[in-house]
Amino acid sequence: MSGFVSLVGAGPGDPELLTLKAARRLAEADLLLYDALVSPEILDLASGAQRFSVGKRAGRPSIAQETIHRLMIREATRGKRIVRLKCGDPFVLGRGGEEALALAAAGIAFEVVPGLTTAVSAPALSGIPVTHRGLASGFAVVSGHAEAAYRPVLESVAPGSLTLVILMGLASRAAIARLLVSRGWSVATPAAVCLAAGTDRALTWIGALDALGTAPLSRAHPDAPGTIVIGEVVKAGAAIAAALFPHPAALAESQAV
Amino acid sequence: MSGFVSLVGAGPGDPELLTLKAARRLAEADLLLYDALVSPEILDLASGAQRFSVGKRAGRPSIAQETIHRLMIREATRGKRIVRLKCGDPFVLGRGGEEALALAAAGIAFEVVPGLTTAVSAPALSGIPVTHRGLASGFAVVSGHAEAAYRPVLESVAPGSLTLVILMGLASRAAIARLLVSRGWSVATPAAVCLAAGTDRALTWIGALDALGTAPLSRAHPDAPGTIVIGEVVKAGAAIAAALFPHPAALAESQAV
Repeated sequence: MSGFVSLVGAGPGDPELLTLKAARRLAEADLLLYDALVSPEILDLASGAQRFSVGKRAGRPSIAQETIHRLMIREATRGKRIVRLKCGDPFVLGRGGEEALALAAAGIAFEVVPGLTTAVSAPALSGIPVTHRGLASGFAVVSGHAEAAYRPVLESVAPGSLTLVILMGLASRAAIARLLVSRGWSVATPAAVCLAAGTDRALTWIGALDALGTAPLSRAHPDAPGTIVIGEVVKAGAAIAAALFPHPAALAESQAV
Repeated sequence: MSGFVSLVGAGPGDPELLTLKAARRLAEADLLLYDALVSPEILDLASGAQRFSVGKRAGRPSIAQETIHRLMIREATRGKRIVRLKCGDPFVLGRGGEEALALAAAGIAFEVVPGLTTAVSAPALSGIPVTHRGLASGFAVVSGHAEAAYRPVLESVAPGSLTLVILMGLASRAAIARLLVSRGWSVATPAAVCLAAGTDRALTWIGALDALGTAPLSRAHPDAPGTIVIGEVVKAGAAIAAALFPHPAALAESQAV
């Protein structure tokens, strides 16, 4: 009897935005290893599984990546059907590639079940298309977690050439805005922060790039994942959002575009 | 009685990679307006709906975007529950933003149901992570359909700085490779073409950038959607793919990395 590991994307948070395959894998799992920020409703779908949180959260002690690899390999060797559940998509800034390589090296059978990446779905749920005819024919996605990761990418993209989507960048949003302006991006470039998109705590801030750093996001849950969008598409998004969320309380804490 | 339009992403092709919400909207629909290339198994989920193909395909006459808008508005005004189904995600190079704006302007109630974008899921299903620690901390997505769209974006990204994902670029892959090399990308940059990812006709070509233009994709179904990935992540992907697809026939027509 040999085990099997499914590297599964949980999508942006709403259980209805899981894929059919992800829901099936959760229902069949013996063991669920999940990241921080996956919603309890999604975890509950793994009704027959032992559950362990192996997530990393800023400023708290976390399990080493190597430990996660060892745990998956050990339990798969024991014959378990394991779901390794990650927010968004496992192969977008989620270290899923490293986990796949570790499983491959250990000879463990595995699969990848893609999930909705927050990079696209959080803006979409907030009404913002990352591409839009006449405004942007492409977009770039980067982690805002560490300057060493985002600086080279942001410096390599010509000002205004495509939509920028920054994940895990709430804490560094002031530094990111300053960096972009110093590289020639207009201070008036429309920007948005999509908080807890697709949940009933969803909140979208829309403003100009030079206000991004001081955008008042304080009332949002401090742990809510946030997705930053920078580019002209935010203008189309503001019009779409106004139709999607006619009740201002559900829309935005602050709007300036 | 007022109608409602759901702008729904069908994901990369496999019906199991629909979201739960997309499947539910299809089951409830009165009218299904779908793009070319959505698989018949997915269309069949709309068992109670009238179905119309409104897709555009290269080289064939297609319905004008305005006509799609008028059709949605007219039928929603008549009280229909409409699913407007698009390949991948409706807000990634799918003109979903334009449709949302048209519905908003007409006062029609609508929603956006994000789908798995092919830009991330086709590489993932082929084993290729678009980001990978030490190889790429970001990625850019662009349409390869028209030079006027891809040239400014590709010229704006510094060589090797992030992973490039090009959708709808099979026909222009030689021109794209030449453009990138002329802008300083190394001819040895790993590249991949993921064809019909996630289906039983899936085929992945992996090679170097200077072989992309002449990659032998001829045996693949000529209508298969193809996703091009360029960057060092393809190396990690080749190792993951070798574990995911141990039987060479299921893997790749040609490999050179």
